Amino acid sequence: MIKDFNFYAPTRVVFGRNAEGKIGELVKSCNAGKVLVHYGGGSAERSGLLNVVRKQLREAGIDFIELGGVVPNPLLSKVYEGIELCRREKVDFILAVGGGSVIDSSKAIGYGVPYEGDAWDFWDGKATPQQCLPIGAVLTIPAAGSEMSSSSVITKDEGLVKRGITSDLCRCRFAVMNPERTYTLPPYQTAAGATDIMMHTMERYFTRYNEMTLTDAISEALLRTVKDAALAVMERPEDYRLRAQIMWASSLAHNDLTECGADRDFGTHRLEHELSALFGVTHGAGLAALWPSWARYVKDRHLARFVQFAVNVMGVENDFAHPDETAEKGIRAIEDFYRRIGMPTNIRELLGGRVITDEEIEVMVDKCSRGGTITVGSLEELRAEDMRRIYQMARA
Amino acid sequence: MIKDFNFYAPTRVVFGRNAEGKIGELVKSCNAGKVLVHYGGGSAERSGLLNVVRKQLREAGIDFIELGGVVPNPLLSKVYEGIELCRREKVDFILAVGGGSVIDSSKAIGYGVPYEGDAWDFWDGKATPQQCLPIGAVLTIPAAGSEMSSSSVITKDEGLVKRGITSDLCRCRFAVMNPERTYTLPPYQTAAGATDIMMHTMERYFTRYNEMTLTDAISEALLRTVKDAALAVMERPEDYRLRAQIMWASSLAHNDLTECGADRDFGTHRLEHELSALFGVTHGAGLAALWPSWARYVKDRHLARFVQFAVNVMGVENDFAHPDETAEKGIRAIEDFYRRIGMPTNIRELLGGRVITDEEIEVMVDKCSRGGTITVGSLEELRAEDMRRIYQMARA
Repeated sequence: MIKDFNFYAPTRVVFGRNAEGKIGELVKSCNAGKVLVHYGGGSAERSGLLNVVRKQLREAGIDFIELGGVVPNPLLSKVYEGIELCRREKVDFILAVGGGSVIDSSKAIGYGVPYEGDAWDFWDGKATPQQCLPIGAVLTIPAAGSEMSSSSVITKDEGLVKRGITSDLCRCRFAVMNPERTYTLPPYQTAAGATDIMMHTMERYFTRYNEMTLTDAISEALLRTVKDAALAVMERPEDYRLRAQIMWASSLAHNDLTECGADRDFGTHRLEHELSALFGVTHGAGLAALWPSWARYVKDRHLARFVQFAVNVMGVENDFAHPDETAEKGIRAIEDFYRRIGMPTNIRELLGGRVITDEEIEVMVDKCSRGGTITVGSLEELRAEDMRRIYQMARA
Repeated sequence: MIKDFNFYAPTRVVFGRNAEGKIGELVKSCNAGKVLVHYGGGSAERSGLLNVVRKQLREAGIDFIELGGVVPNPLLSKVYEGIELCRREKVDFILAVGGGSVIDSSKAIGYGVPYEGDAWDFWDGKATPQQCLPIGAVLTIPAAGSEMSSSSVITKDEGLVKRGITSDLCRCRFAVMNPERTYTLPPYQTAAGATDIMMHTMERYFTRYNEMTLTDAISEALLRTVKDAALAVMERPEDYRLRAQIMWASSLAHNDLTECGADRDFGTHRLEHELSALFGVTHGAGLAALWPSWARYVKDRHLARFVQFAVNVMGVENDFAHPDETAEKGIRAIEDFYRRIGMPTNIRELLGGRVITDEEIEVMVDKCSRGGTITVGSLEELRAEDMRRIYQMARA
């Protein structure tokens, strides 16, 4: 089956060594009156990037204020702070300088400013965004793909409830990407980013819609390229060629290109949100810790797809007589890949040796299934009992 | 080398069996006051598509007028007619119903309406478009990729001068694509379309910038998919799966996705424009007649790239000791592919056995090189003498 689809990726991408020199003119082209520069911790300051941004805005004659302090797994409390600040200062454009957390926080502020109710309503399913302030991104961490995606994931401080919503309204007007800015990323962040990038495409590859061969071929090309580049960049962190592949892949993996004619599963993502909400782990690493268990839990009912992945992405030889073994070899191959780039393959490795308890699993199952009222995933619709089983398998 | 790049593909794509049911709401979302429905010959009428479009617009309460009669290699005279009509009727939105010729004609009218001078100025290099009426497309022929591209190719009736220009201003607001609409395309048109689609990617694949492996891998995936689908669809013209690959590839091949980090050559395109201007041939068929000769003319100075194409796209076994032979086998493989889908491999075959004269070659060389004042192509910058040699090689 091929699913009817919409494709809408309006973000203007400016990519390359000289990309940052365009920030001023890009913001200006969006008719920004007053800009909020939104960022995370100290690295954007230390690297000099924030000063480049400030200089660009000043030289373009653009009025701006700043709000830093976005944390990984960005918090609703910071979003509220941003909404208040933007209203007070009559901000009409948000410039996100950072990775997915900063961009997602910017999107959430963008939704919240024109909304009269509590911004959390959107993530709580009580309201649908009708407007969003325009947003531009200067990307520093290739991972989340938020610079071209329609999604925004926010964590509510109280109870650590982590949820995502999607809307075309929040698609960035532009995204500035300079691969050189990623040379100094810690290896763990680079690896977790590559894992997240690959997962965004794998979440769309493992679906019931398996007849759009062009999308399959593009997805496999992207997965192979990121896998090879991630392995190599561990040895050569300042190789522009490798960094460029990973950075551009982060956008293409999550701008819906790899979903055309297919579907999105995102079951592993939903299971992971509970892990990173509860334990504060890096999202990409959490995905690596869960995916092999998810894969083994569902693979027997979708063997052909897992064989295709093993052969076309992981380079496993196709043992036609034993598709189950070929599929398993593909999963083992990605576990081997995760180990080589320093990613975990189960939750114990993710948490540095700590084994999660049955009680912790129940907390995650309860939150992920919203008290047993919803399922997640589409290849297989996972109910609470499936979630529990996958967490148990991944516990190791 | 990796080239710094911009990527901007804002067209909203609505793809699938039910895509046409969205036309009314799509036009409405563009705030159209009065619409020109622009189309070609009788096929859009005969197939019932025009009636679907009319019904959609009427039901959405949208005022519209019509202008048909666009011919393949669309003419400036029709563009002038459209500009006058749009000004008189105060049209503010153009809906193109057809293939690349109709969309390109729509773009030209869109440029011309707000321009005070002669619209040909843009194609003559005397002016740069500053505005364009918004355009939507209902695609019937996958080939030109104009539904997502920035280009518009127009032929001036007097002297049959065929030229293209590019600007982001003319990117379609939306593109409606239903693969079922292409079931009844004549095999020759299907094959010429597939050839054109592949050439749009090949023109970006054979460049000096050969280190963006993600773009390479995506390009190779697209080329293999279209090649396989084109061969199969000759036998099964009403296979939705095959038609869907070709239709979506037509957009991705020319929306600049396959140019990211690379460059564009388009030398073969420029040589072909003279062929189709002079002999009225189908553009895609003209490309097939020229590319093997272009390839053999330049390949020795870019062997690695031609080997990569032979192996990764055409499935040729890599004879490492003899790269020149591997490269030549790749060119022979695409000639074989052209023959199997009914495309020519030289100009004699293109013109049904007629051999072009030296005088005709000189006319084409003179027009293509604008009297010896310009070069075309970027992998190799072709001067008049190079153009002459390639036309001679392709004469057969």
